[in-house]
Amino acid sequence: MSFNTFGRLLRFSTWGESHGPALGAVVDGCPPGLELSEADIQPFMDARKPGTSRFTTQRREADEVRILSGVFEGRTTGTPISLMIENTDQRSKDYSEIAQKYRPGHADYSYDAKYGFRDYRGGGRSSARETAARVAAGGVARKIIPEVTLTAYVCELGGDAIDRDNFDAERISQNPFFCPDAAAAERWAEKVDAARKAGSSLGAVVECVATGVPAGWGAPLYAKMDSELAAAMMSINATKGIEIGDGFAAARLTGEENADAMRPGADGSPEFAANHAGGTAGGITTGQPLVCRVAFKPTSSILTPVDTITRKGEATEIVTKGRHDPCVGIRGTPVVEAMMALVLADQKLLHLGQCG
Amino acid sequence: MSFNTFGRLLRFSTWGESHGPALGAVVDGCPPGLELSEADIQPFMDARKPGTSRFTTQRREADEVRILSGVFEGRTTGTPISLMIENTDQRSKDYSEIAQKYRPGHADYSYDAKYGFRDYRGGGRSSARETAARVAAGGVARKIIPEVTLTAYVCELGGDAIDRDNFDAERISQNPFFCPDAAAAERWAEKVDAARKAGSSLGAVVECVATGVPAGWGAPLYAKMDSELAAAMMSINATKGIEIGDGFAAARLTGEENADAMRPGADGSPEFAANHAGGTAGGITTGQPLVCRVAFKPTSSILTPVDTITRKGEATEIVTKGRHDPCVGIRGTPVVEAMMALVLADQKLLHLGQCG
Amino acid sequence: MSFNTFGRLLRFSTWGESHGPALGAVVDGCPPGLELSEADIQPFMDARKPGTSRFTTQRREADEVRILSGVFEGRTTGTPISLMIENTDQRSKDYSEIAQKYRPGHADYSYDAKYGFRDYRGGGRSSARETAARVAAGGVARKIIPEVTLTAYVCELGGDAIDRDNFDAERISQNPFFCPDAAAAERWAEKVDAARKAGSSLGAVVECVATGVPAGWGAPLYAKMDSELAAAMMSINATKGIEIGDGFAAARLTGEENADAMRPGADGSPEFAANHAGGTAGGITTGQPLVCRVAFKPTSSILTPVDTITRKGEATEIVTKGRHDPCVGIRGTPVVEAMMALVLADQKLLHLGQCG
Amino acid sequence: MSFNTFGRLLRFSTWGESHGPALGAVVDGCPPGLELSEADIQPFMDARKPGTSRFTTQRREADEVRILSGVFEGRTTGTPISLMIENTDQRSKDYSEIAQKYRPGHADYSYDAKYGFRDYRGGGRSSARETAARVAAGGVARKIIPEVTLTAYVCELGGDAIDRDNFDAERISQNPFFCPDAAAAERWAEKVDAARKAGSSLGAVVECVATGVPAGWGAPLYAKMDSELAAAMMSINATKGIEIGDGFAAARLTGEENADAMRPGADGSPEFAANHAGGTAGGITTGQPLVCRVAFKPTSSILTPVDTITRKGEATEIVTKGRHDPCVGIRGTPVVEAMMALVLADQKLLHLGQCG
Repeated sequence: MSFNTFGRLLRFSTWGESHGPALGAVVDGCPPGLELSEADIQPFMDARKPGTSRFTTQRREADEVRILSGVFEGRTTGTPISLMIENTDQRSKDYSEIAQKYRPGHADYSYDAKYGFRDYRGGGRSSARETAARVAAGGVARKIIPEVTLTAYVCELGGDAIDRDNFDAERISQNPFFCPDAAAAERWAEKVDAARKAGSSLGAVVECVATGVPAGWGAPLYAKMDSELAAAMMSINATKGIEIGDGFAAARLTGEENADAMRPGADGSPEFAANHAGGTAGGITTGQPLVCRVAFKPTSSILTPVDTITRKGEATEIVTKGRHDPCVGIRGTPVVEAMMALVLADQKLLHLGQCG
Repeated sequence: MSFNTFGRLLRFSTWGESHGPALGAVVDGCPPGLELSEADIQPFMDARKPGTSRFTTQRREADEVRILSGVFEGRTTGTPISLMIENTDQRSKDYSEIAQKYRPGHADYSYDAKYGFRDYRGGGRSSARETAARVAAGGVARKIIPEVTLTAYVCELGGDAIDRDNFDAERISQNPFFCPDAAAAERWAEKVDAARKAGSSLGAVVECVATGVPAGWGAPLYAKMDSELAAAMMSINATKGIEIGDGFAAARLTGEENADAMRPGADGSPEFAANHAGGTAGGITTGQPLVCRVAFKPTSSILTPVDTITRKGEATEIVTKGRHDPCVGIRGTPVVEAMMALVLADQKLLHLGQCG
Repeated sequence: MSFNTFGRLLRFSTWGESHGPALGAVVDGCPPGLELSEADIQPFMDARKPGTSRFTTQRREADEVRILSGVFEGRTTGTPISLMIENTDQRSKDYSEIAQKYRPGHADYSYDAKYGFRDYRGGGRSSARETAARVAAGGVARKIIPEVTLTAYVCELGGDAIDRDNFDAERISQNPFFCPDAAAAERWAEKVDAARKAGSSLGAVVECVATGVPAGWGAPLYAKMDSELAAAMMSINATKGIEIGDGFAAARLTGEENADAMRPGADGSPEFAANHAGGTAGGITTGQPLVCRVAFKPTSSILTPVDTITRKGEATEIVTKGRHDPCVGIRGTPVVEAMMALVLADQKLLHLGQCG
Repeated sequence: MSFNTFGRLLRFSTWGESHGPALGAVVDGCPPGLELSEADIQPFMDARKPGTSRFTTQRREADEVRILSGVFEGRTTGTPISLMIENTDQRSKDYSEIAQKYRPGHADYSYDAKYGFRDYRGGGRSSARETAARVAAGGVARKIIPEVTLTAYVCELGGDAIDRDNFDAERISQNPFFCPDAAAAERWAEKVDAARKAGSSLGAVVECVATGVPAGWGAPLYAKMDSELAAAMMSINATKGIEIGDGFAAARLTGEENADAMRPGADGSPEFAANHAGGTAGGITTGQPLVCRVAFKPTSSILTPVDTITRKGEATEIVTKGRHDPCVGIRGTPVVEAMMALVLADQKLLHLGQCG
């Protein structure tokens, strides 16, 4: 079973493969009357699109999104919004090696084990190109939550973390790493260059912060804000971990250290002395910034030969040539932001649906 | 909206509050013909139940599960299985303080923000007593996946990790910490005692490993095994992070270090040189052990006074007396295991439903 | 797969068999703050319960509903509401004949074909006793839609229809047939008596009207109000048809005859010259009364021997003794009303969730 | 909320409006390895497409379906199948009248009541053009159920029923009415011609029969085969009623008359003496032909002026010009068949998912 749909009231379904004619998303459940055009979505597509610096894959895709339905006279109608992005740079190449050998770390073997065969061209459905459709859907979701400001950035790359004292949100869009720390960005340029030249790859950690989220979104237990975010982030290609607030570090604190004390705030809402919880309590938002962090493994495609097996089960080795991101976490940043937008928009609608 | 249901083909819905007459789960979608009785479930209930050592809450609950439907002549019928656990030790006490003040780290404020009021007796629905129903449901799920062996344990408590060289699975059930390392268990006894006496609390990390999972369970993208596990684990009370395989550590590896090389195995299945991925690739299992780790924050109920506000928004402070686990991660261990059983059983059925 | 859950935002899951210890429903997604107690639900249980006249089964059940969760200090908390009804009159009898022979018209053969075996005591899960849980859930749903008035009644029994000119809503509760036409009720008493004495059975048509439903509930296409009602009604035991408005009769009208002309109404809402559509257009309510009709087949349990086969495939015949409703449509009336309440409450919440 | 998705394991989501650039469906959950190309789907599109006779709308659409994803080397991959159909004959015309006046029987008023505004061009999302996407999705579903033969036909048009003694399945494709009775088809030609010339419209009843469905598909209660079919059929534009087997006529039979007696069959399966139940018992198939009937109201677009109101609430009248089907039930026939294919394919997969 595929289950290519995410969300409860705001649901999106993505479709498409790396080397098919197009890919897209159908966004269902968007409220009516919101202003929406391609121009609202395209900037987010551009942030994610490949080929914009030497630090990402050299595949060239315009990643122009088209709205095929659900918008009339510039406003959403409440009916499904079909978003399509054409693939334009599916380089014709010889896939016979990938067709016959399993690339470790890729979905080659597991897809074959599940489905009996696979579309091996560029990873097929398992390619991170699918995330273009998520970013497009995220552009719709943002319209539903104008009260929320989202900021995603890489906070660690190849084990090298940003210095929180150097944090400058304006920097994020000024370097090819979505890095809020100018000094770190310089170091990362060297790191990624070195990895790229060596045919190696690096992992990264992406952090996303949402401010303006009111208290009360989310739900106890199986639709906890934390749980929805975790599912969303772990559905992104190459992610292996997700934390809310202090996350794993909270497991090393005492109860006193971890307490987010409250005091009366100016407008009647509480003020919090800290935000170890990352903006939720019992799965429901507290009005504090919502903070999550997502771990991306290093790109599995590397030039160093790795032992593997063929489809027939014979020993061999493989070198994964082709155009790859040396650090998928970088271009994962707009995807993390899009997924957070999608989760928050869904939770806002769910809150309206239960609590009016 | 509540969404107290989890799962896709094997779905369970839990109900009940800390201080209501009972709590329970309805397990729907269980295949017919499986042998099932209360005796199959009770051992897992006993592992989770409170009051078994001085390191857990002193609330005394028999946590006896009753099967009210879905089983006939000792076998499941394919119809919903209703499981009920009566609450027997809801100590009558004065809740007026909790009713009027928000306990930081608890769901008091966020529930009020969402719902306008809350059942404040012992946390109501947000109490970890709800996890008893999960463990019961997990007992049913285990019947669906006899090929799988699940092992959950605390791998780190209060920042003190086990020594992997001392790992002995037999030890897990021989100490009150589900600790596979006898030396660590001794250290933890002191740590938890000290925290308990100081009215403080500690966090923990729980690891769960599933062996025997065949290659091919899971799905691309929004029902990725990783995503389902993340949602499951982050829905447990007090969890703040989840990792699959190397998780956040993978973000610090190079592509070469992170590669799980393959070679031909004895039975035609591949053998893997490593398991950085934790048993999945592209969201689908590879046949390797499935490994996840879950971060539990320290219990929010502590005896040190913490600043907070009243329901009316006035400054005050609160001391959370009562019977609490000094480290909720300990009793979270059987819950993590139950949730993994539930996810795996669901994914097995989904695989049958798509791939026959 | 069972899928014992119905609804999208207001979801209920039922459990239980005819001869188990109890049955119940878990109602999830109910908004917080609604006044609710057992006394609000019991009158609807009493309307459905067996043994209240000679025209229904003589099984005696108090059908007392208990609320086990989700209500605090007399109000719903927004968390799942667990409703339980104990079975008290599961008469011990010899089921060996039913265990070995298939009763035509019952689910005996089809359950065996699907599940390999079945709980044969009183039909197990396929017994109409399950509808007690629906009626209880419907009692919760009614609280969500105080603006709506629901009126269900039998409009045809054994092929004998009411005279619309004799329609008197007050009569419905004054006879054992939920019949709004006093003259018809007298005729039906004779018909049902005759059938009962002959060991035969009769079918019926139940109509349900909802007034007070505002324009705008429902949705285009796959969650059309019409589609949701159809699914709800056809999920009731023994139903074989469902119509909205004129239903099948509309297929015999011309476009002019079927047009529901509109004119300006007193309060700005339109007035309609007719209601052939039964209160919906394009799947969304128009503010007119919502009207549906449900066909119940005659009870399959009859005293006339019918040819059948044994579980081993041998020819035999069967006579279904025991306590049965000679016309299941009668006691189906409160069930139809409950299902309409559940659909409308769900659609109200969905409307809030999409359109605010 | 829109909910433009139907199905549980085999799910399809449709998108698109009457006058947008295209419409389509994303089919998710299709098993891998099935042979599929556009050529498999196109014949069903052609059966539904407009403009093929004088008895349907004169809108000319090629209705050519394109597969954009989910198929590789001629076989399904198990990933979502995106189907797109371009709109080519959205005649430019003046919609100002429809924009300002509500057409009775159409979704104009109800959409405005729900969403605040609507895409008024040709009915927007409420147009029956959406059903082209269903028929395309149905073409995929048929591949999943090769054991099933589906036959849909009009059994009554404008109140004039076929003579069952004249039933000849070969005739269905030989006249523009999907009529299995040659004599009836001749009468209907006159009826529809007369209605068309008078600017009037007619209703119809469509029957669909599925043979080859094994015993055991379906489920008790909320995913009963009957309930799923009812939801599917009532989600089609212009439908107002649905019956399984004898349907409403069963409500007029006695238990003896309605009994489907069983006897041993040649191959160990039972033979049935009759099929009043229409192929299900307790919501699960019995192996008999599955029979349902769907009532289509007459097309709401007529040339006779009808009283209505403007968006501002003023009295006016409307004449609906343009290109319309004089009897929507005719072209509804392939849609009914497609929906049955989709329900059966879903139920087959669900059965595998629960019972292996």
